[in-house]
Amino acid sequence: MGAVFPFSAIVGQDEMKLALLIAAIDPSVGGVLVLGDRGTGKSTAVRGLASLLPPMNAVAGCRYRCDPAAGPSARCEECAARSGSLGSQRVPVPVVDLPLGVTEDRVVGALDLERAITRGEKAFEPGLLARAHRGFLYVDEVNLLEDHIVDLLLDVAASGQNVVEREGLSVRHPARFVLVGSGNPEEGDLRPQLLDRFGLSVEIGTPKDLAQRVEVVRRRDAFERDPEAFLELWRREDMRIRRKIAAAHRRLPGVVVPDATLLRAAGLCMALGTDGLRGELTLMRAARALAALEGAESVEDAHLRRIAPAVLRHRLRRNPLDEASSGTRVEIALAQQFAA
Amino acid sequence: MGAVFPFSAIVGQDEMKLALLIAAIDPSVGGVLVLGDRGTGKSTAVRGLASLLPPMNAVAGCRYRCDPAAGPSARCEECAARSGSLGSQRVPVPVVDLPLGVTEDRVVGALDLERAITRGEKAFEPGLLARAHRGFLYVDEVNLLEDHIVDLLLDVAASGQNVVEREGLSVRHPARFVLVGSGNPEEGDLRPQLLDRFGLSVEIGTPKDLAQRVEVVRRRDAFERDPEAFLELWRREDMRIRRKIAAAHRRLPGVVVPDATLLRAAGLCMALGTDGLRGELTLMRAARALAALEGAESVEDAHLRRIAPAVLRHRLRRNPLDEASSGTRVEIALAQQFAA
Amino acid sequence: MGAVFPFSAIVGQDEMKLALLIAAIDPSVGGVLVLGDRGTGKSTAVRGLASLLPPMNAVAGCRYRCDPAAGPSARCEECAARSGSLGSQRVPVPVVDLPLGVTEDRVVGALDLERAITRGEKAFEPGLLARAHRGFLYVDEVNLLEDHIVDLLLDVAASGQNVVEREGLSVRHPARFVLVGSGNPEEGDLRPQLLDRFGLSVEIGTPKDLAQRVEVVRRRDAFERDPEAFLELWRREDMRIRRKIAAAHRRLPGVVVPDATLLRAAGLCMALGTDGLRGELTLMRAARALAALEGAESVEDAHLRRIAPAVLRHRLRRNPLDEASSGTRVEIALAQQFAA
Amino acid sequence: MGAVFPFSAIVGQDEMKLALLIAAIDPSVGGVLVLGDRGTGKSTAVRGLASLLPPMNAVAGCRYRCDPAAGPSARCEECAARSGSLGSQRVPVPVVDLPLGVTEDRVVGALDLERAITRGEKAFEPGLLARAHRGFLYVDEVNLLEDHIVDLLLDVAASGQNVVEREGLSVRHPARFVLVGSGNPEEGDLRPQLLDRFGLSVEIGTPKDLAQRVEVVRRRDAFERDPEAFLELWRREDMRIRRKIAAAHRRLPGVVVPDATLLRAAGLCMALGTDGLRGELTLMRAARALAALEGAESVEDAHLRRIAPAVLRHRLRRNPLDEASSGTRVEIALAQQFAA
Amino acid sequence: MGAVFPFSAIVGQDEMKLALLIAAIDPSVGGVLVLGDRGTGKSTAVRGLASLLPPMNAVAGCRYRCDPAAGPSARCEECAARSGSLGSQRVPVPVVDLPLGVTEDRVVGALDLERAITRGEKAFEPGLLARAHRGFLYVDEVNLLEDHIVDLLLDVAASGQNVVEREGLSVRHPARFVLVGSGNPEEGDLRPQLLDRFGLSVEIGTPKDLAQRVEVVRRRDAFERDPEAFLELWRREDMRIRRKIAAAHRRLPGVVVPDATLLRAAGLCMALGTDGLRGELTLMRAARALAALEGAESVEDAHLRRIAPAVLRHRLRRNPLDEASSGTRVEIALAQQFAA
Amino acid sequence: MGAVFPFSAIVGQDEMKLALLIAAIDPSVGGVLVLGDRGTGKSTAVRGLASLLPPMNAVAGCRYRCDPAAGPSARCEECAARSGSLGSQRVPVPVVDLPLGVTEDRVVGALDLERAITRGEKAFEPGLLARAHRGFLYVDEVNLLEDHIVDLLLDVAASGQNVVEREGLSVRHPARFVLVGSGNPEEGDLRPQLLDRFGLSVEIGTPKDLAQRVEVVRRRDAFERDPEAFLELWRREDMRIRRKIAAAHRRLPGVVVPDATLLRAAGLCMALGTDGLRGELTLMRAARALAALEGAESVEDAHLRRIAPAVLRHRLRRNPLDEASSGTRVEIALAQQFAA
Repeated sequence: MGAVFPFSAIVGQDEMKLALLIAAIDPSVGGVLVLGDRGTGKSTAVRGLASLLPPMNAVAGCRYRCDPAAGPSARCEECAARSGSLGSQRVPVPVVDLPLGVTEDRVVGALDLERAITRGEKAFEPGLLARAHRGFLYVDEVNLLEDHIVDLLLDVAASGQNVVEREGLSVRHPARFVLVGSGNPEEGDLRPQLLDRFGLSVEIGTPKDLAQRVEVVRRRDAFERDPEAFLELWRREDMRIRRKIAAAHRRLPGVVVPDATLLRAAGLCMALGTDGLRGELTLMRAARALAALEGAESVEDAHLRRIAPAVLRHRLRRNPLDEASSGTRVEIALAQQFAA
Repeated sequence: MGAVFPFSAIVGQDEMKLALLIAAIDPSVGGVLVLGDRGTGKSTAVRGLASLLPPMNAVAGCRYRCDPAAGPSARCEECAARSGSLGSQRVPVPVVDLPLGVTEDRVVGALDLERAITRGEKAFEPGLLARAHRGFLYVDEVNLLEDHIVDLLLDVAASGQNVVEREGLSVRHPARFVLVGSGNPEEGDLRPQLLDRFGLSVEIGTPKDLAQRVEVVRRRDAFERDPEAFLELWRREDMRIRRKIAAAHRRLPGVVVPDATLLRAAGLCMALGTDGLRGELTLMRAARALAALEGAESVEDAHLRRIAPAVLRHRLRRNPLDEASSGTRVEIALAQQFAA
Repeated sequence: MGAVFPFSAIVGQDEMKLALLIAAIDPSVGGVLVLGDRGTGKSTAVRGLASLLPPMNAVAGCRYRCDPAAGPSARCEECAARSGSLGSQRVPVPVVDLPLGVTEDRVVGALDLERAITRGEKAFEPGLLARAHRGFLYVDEVNLLEDHIVDLLLDVAASGQNVVEREGLSVRHPARFVLVGSGNPEEGDLRPQLLDRFGLSVEIGTPKDLAQRVEVVRRRDAFERDPEAFLELWRREDMRIRRKIAAAHRRLPGVVVPDATLLRAAGLCMALGTDGLRGELTLMRAARALAALEGAESVEDAHLRRIAPAVLRHRLRRNPLDEASSGTRVEIALAQQFAA
Repeated sequence: MGAVFPFSAIVGQDEMKLALLIAAIDPSVGGVLVLGDRGTGKSTAVRGLASLLPPMNAVAGCRYRCDPAAGPSARCEECAARSGSLGSQRVPVPVVDLPLGVTEDRVVGALDLERAITRGEKAFEPGLLARAHRGFLYVDEVNLLEDHIVDLLLDVAASGQNVVEREGLSVRHPARFVLVGSGNPEEGDLRPQLLDRFGLSVEIGTPKDLAQRVEVVRRRDAFERDPEAFLELWRREDMRIRRKIAAAHRRLPGVVVPDATLLRAAGLCMALGTDGLRGELTLMRAARALAALEGAESVEDAHLRRIAPAVLRHRLRRNPLDEASSGTRVEIALAQQFAA
Repeated sequence: MGAVFPFSAIVGQDEMKLALLIAAIDPSVGGVLVLGDRGTGKSTAVRGLASLLPPMNAVAGCRYRCDPAAGPSARCEECAARSGSLGSQRVPVPVVDLPLGVTEDRVVGALDLERAITRGEKAFEPGLLARAHRGFLYVDEVNLLEDHIVDLLLDVAASGQNVVEREGLSVRHPARFVLVGSGNPEEGDLRPQLLDRFGLSVEIGTPKDLAQRVEVVRRRDAFERDPEAFLELWRREDMRIRRKIAAAHRRLPGVVVPDATLLRAAGLCMALGTDGLRGELTLMRAARALAALEGAESVEDAHLRRIAPAVLRHRLRRNPLDEASSGTRVEIALAQQFAA
Repeated sequence: MGAVFPFSAIVGQDEMKLALLIAAIDPSVGGVLVLGDRGTGKSTAVRGLASLLPPMNAVAGCRYRCDPAAGPSARCEECAARSGSLGSQRVPVPVVDLPLGVTEDRVVGALDLERAITRGEKAFEPGLLARAHRGFLYVDEVNLLEDHIVDLLLDVAASGQNVVEREGLSVRHPARFVLVGSGNPEEGDLRPQLLDRFGLSVEIGTPKDLAQRVEVVRRRDAFERDPEAFLELWRREDMRIRRKIAAAHRRLPGVVVPDATLLRAAGLCMALGTDGLRGELTLMRAARALAALEGAESVEDAHLRRIAPAVLRHRLRRNPLDEASSGTRVEIALAQQFAA
């Protein structure tokens, strides 16, 4: 509902657009965090991404849209219990909004009161986490999200499952999604655990170029005055990006990650002292997705260098003696790594 | 209910009156914030505006009053699903009060308990956001509004939709309205996110002219002693303003915004360092609405200069080293811009 | 229920008694605030006022007691919808207690649960605000009232309407009343918004005269030992005051307010720097009511001077450099104004 | 339930016992506050008082036990509405416990859920305030009572009525009772408004006399080992006190309060600077009850002097420059007053 | 449920074991508080006590287990109302756990929802306080108990009754029990009022003797590997203690407390400045129970000296100038008292 | 649901793996706490353990899975009440997740609303504590668990029973489980009481070896790209560990603990000043389980030394003057103990 500003009509903001494309190509990269001033089009880009995503296969009739190609262990309880081949249907990749005032029961799902009252049955009514499975979950102003909802998201993001133990219900279902959050860092910090769950983070600012600013205002005004005409104008460009995503998705499993690349990724993370190994894991995946996007058969150093800032910037510990910003520290480590 | 003091009988307060007229001409300007002392007639002006608004076309039978002329993407789910031409009816522009003690369920809408209990159905009962769609939502003492209600308003103002995920309901409907808030800044600050959502802000004070004060008291006393007679006295003047709004509304799509004007607007915002691009977008729209109000065919520098303080005053970051008030800083930037 | 100490038997406390009489003559003066020590008879005076109020006309059968003489815009929705002349009946002026522990639903009204349960209908059961319409709403210890109830009172006092948006109800009805509050300023401040809603404020203290103290104790003891006999003793004096109020009420519309008086009132407020114009508006009304009480045909300077302290004392901003009490500052401004 | 330690078997603590007797003779004295260490028998004395109170007359069938001898204005709504003479019955004076964990609805009364559910009627089920009418309401550890319950008690103590505006109920009934509170001042202060509602306050401590301590322990042990035998032993002494209370009660209306006494009482309060006139009013009543207890026909200076500390001690403002304790300040004022 | 480690198999901890035995012999001693490190077997001892308690007589069919030998005033309302001799049955002494997360309604009892819903009756369902009547109420980690539950316990401990005024219920029943609490003082203080309700307090620590530590571990391991065999091994020793308790119980009423002993007890408390007289009362009772346990016919100084630390240690006011611990201060006072 | 990364494929982290194996061999060791950075595979190891646990015998039809070989005192109420031999069945050892947002009623169990509503019966629906009986209860981010849930866990861990006193229910059932918690100590402390309930604690960090880091990333990526194939690859290694656990379990009752070992354990705890005796008890059990795992017939010093750090590290009091970390202090004490 409501016309959505086309992704391809967004002026500038290249790092943000690349991060979103990479998450669309390999969802296991793990979420995108977009930080920046008010009014710079953070939400616009995320909402525009939805129409670029190619449809996917899902088990026919499964309310969690299980992947028919996945093994039984990755399916929901019902699909795992079925034997034989499962019927398949094409469904759009879900892009689900998590509004700030959402109640816990709508996030995780709850007792279906209608059935409870009319038929006396204790049935589960899936929530937003179920609806976002295999797709995107978008939280605008993620730094204003209430703590108890953040806890829920962290729990599910860690396990890939939604475990519901409330109101006499005991349900679990798969819930794997790309968490996309946007926020203004001046209005509230993100908890480190939540930061860690984002694979990529990008920062965007108000453009400093006068012509670019005028172009943004012009396109925005044109869109709002006649959305249908504007969409028609950009549809071709959007379709081009969509095909590019689909091609990268097909190409992804064949992209090779050379050992040297893996060693460089691990060396980079060790030099920066990131906690745990999620840094190098994400670096490998994001670089591979980038290679797939650009049609390369193997991950090159260039892919690693290009994506490293978005992967690592938010994983550094704050060092009070080191005045350099996170971005600069990543750049220095990159330079040293590739000089070696 | 209750006689309303006529808009045209308000003594002075010209900036406030102009801001309200501009929002009436082009609602996409984005809300008006009226700040000032107690007892200066803030509420009076807003309530008086309602009777000046010309009626609008709405899809017959649509409970969200969808615009029959809008494309499907701007309609509610039911209207979007209908094919063929939709019946149309004339309806008044809604002006909805959001009282301070309002509960969340009345703002966003809720489960219709009556139907739930009597018929066992899970139906949605629209709230104030639905009722304000395509009209005005007025919050008196907006700086005293509870935070969780402000969050709701921000969410909806950003997306133009009301997304309800609670009590087992999952509903979304369009909710685009002009937010009008009044408040006394001495009694509580506004959060920056909320400030940013107001297109225009005006400050009004206690008049310093003795004759004007006496005139205000006289008119107020006359109105309260015999409302019907007073209204009769000012009806003609009110009708004149109403016709002016309607004419400006018709004229608006044809008003040209020259590139030079857009450049000036962007330059002004860049000089003042406003966050994002909402500043220039609003400046362009407000100046265009002003031009339409005054019958001009193209936006002139004069329009821009006149409306710039109301558009930009509340978008400045506080600079502790710069003692000048927000208003003065806008004036200086204007002088420099137009000297150039 | 319970015998009420006669208004006329109160020893001293002349300013408080005058303020209550003025509010009884012209309710649009806007509420009386009585501040003082514990045990000085604040509540006694307010409760005694009730039996002095002459009955008023109300539309027969209207549950909000609409005034049959008022125009449609001042009536409730049902009365406004009726055509033809409305039946009329004599009803007492309501004097309604707002107890401290009151719940929000009893103040604004609520869903009528009895009808909801037994008949499945969503009907509105009016609350104390409805009951106080066209009468008095009394809050003892008003400075201890919970904030969310104060918010409700402010909202209604500002608009003259009670807007109920809760429990699926959407109701509005007229609610205009004289708010009478008493409190001990040592036990909690009043919020400025609430202070501003009181037309008149009076301060009372423990009498310093021994004979007067003994007389108070004697009358109080006599009243408590045999209420009926005591009431009988003072009934004649109470009736005399009641007739005086009724006469002033009839005389009020004819009392003239000379332009010079209005100018003096505005000058006084400007000199004192009161916020907004509620100061002069109330000054004019209170002086007019005082003139009506004393049988004058026109408001004289003497009326203005006498009532000015009660009208203005609580409207001054606190000036930390000016040590003079509010009362003294009003007296100095009065002297200067009338010297001019 | 549970045997109660006899009032007359209490060792020492004379001031406390006298205060309780005075409140039993003239309830309008207004409540007794007993302050002291843990384990000094505060509760014991209050609980022992109950069995000393002579029965009283009540309207037959009235659930508020209205006094048949009182005028209509002092009766409940039902009794006030009845004409003709009301049947009368003898009932015990109620002594009601207000436990700390009490809920608001049990204090003020509430909707009778049983009738609401089974018969669909909205009936009022009276609470502890109704049950205590014309009797005693006892709060152990009154300084630990929750604030919202204290608010309720203050409201009712001020008006002599219980006004219930909640759950759709709108009820008022008379609620006049002697509030008896005990507490340890080291464990929490009393709010000044609550302090002011107690007519008399007494302080008790751990006895400093070895023989007296042993005697207390002996009696307590004897009582607990064989309550029935112990009660039998002290029954005669308890009956003697009961007859004394009854006689004083009959004698009270005839006791004369000379003007000189009233003047002394007022002079004493003025010298001590107590707020309002509740000090002298209570002083007069307590001295009169003491005179009645001792069989005097007129209140003498000696009565005034003896009861003044208990009446005034808790009414003094704290004077940080005056190191003397409240008790000492009362004694000095007494000496000066009676020297004059 | 669950095998309980035998009381007699506890290694060391003699003071704690003695305190529990004394409370079992004379419950009016008033509760035992066990303070100490984690893992020192505090709970083990209390749980082990249960199986040592000889059964008691109770009125047949009484749900509060009233004592048939008690006078009517000590019985519940139903038993007090019965005439003639009441049937009797042998019942175990209850030892009731009060878990930390307990809800208020389970402690005091509540409306029996099952009967309310199915039969529309307002019946009382007794809570843990009723179940503990005439027995033991055990709170592990008593210093972590929520304040509102502590308030409930204090109220009931003071009056020996449970007064329920909630949910439309108005019930009272006898509730006399020995409160046994254990806790680690490092993890939270006890409120003085709660401390005062414990008759005896004992402190236990981690044993400092290596052999004793090994013995504890050995017995614990043996018990957990084969509980039935371990219980069998210690059953005889447990039975010996049980018979000793029963004998002391029978002997107790005949034990004489000489006047000199009482004087010493009172002198000791006065020297230590304990608040109120609960100190000497408990001292007398505990020494008497100890005498009964040891078969003495009269309380000797030795009994007093031995039990005094446990009775008085927690009743001392903290004296910031006196560095000596509570225990030492009691020892010094004992030495002085018995030197005299 | 969801493929689980095989335990045997975890790279490094030997101390953590050993601790989990020991808890699997002897659950009475009492819980394992895994502390470390984000992203080091804490959860992975715990989840992987589940598939290694050999099935166990349970009473057929018992919903608490009572052990048929246990004595009646260790069974649930129903099984304890049955006579004769109980049918037996093989069931998997439960590994239950306790999600952070869990509600209290799901942890302890609650009224079965379905039966309450449809059949009007008050039946108990067991919660997660019941489900974890005789198995593992896993809390990820245990330091973020809400306090009231921690209280519940502590209570049950101490008593081995779940006592439910709420909603009119009064139920108790056995609940003995191994609590496994993981957390990042930088994100919140653990309460000492909770720390004390963990038998073993291990700390894991980000590997410092580049090759190891690359290997972790490689295995993780391989697993996620094709879980079934990866599981197949490691199944044999997992089965080997499973057989080793089963063998150790059978061998455990025969392993001898020499007196010298017990003395050493107690001496070590005394030297370190651990509270209570849980230190040596756990040391003995963990060393015995280790001996069983390694096929030894008797516990040797080497077993004690190896397991001591995990048993004692979290039991030390913080000594502000002793800068050495907990681990170092244990090592020093071990060196001294075994030098002796």
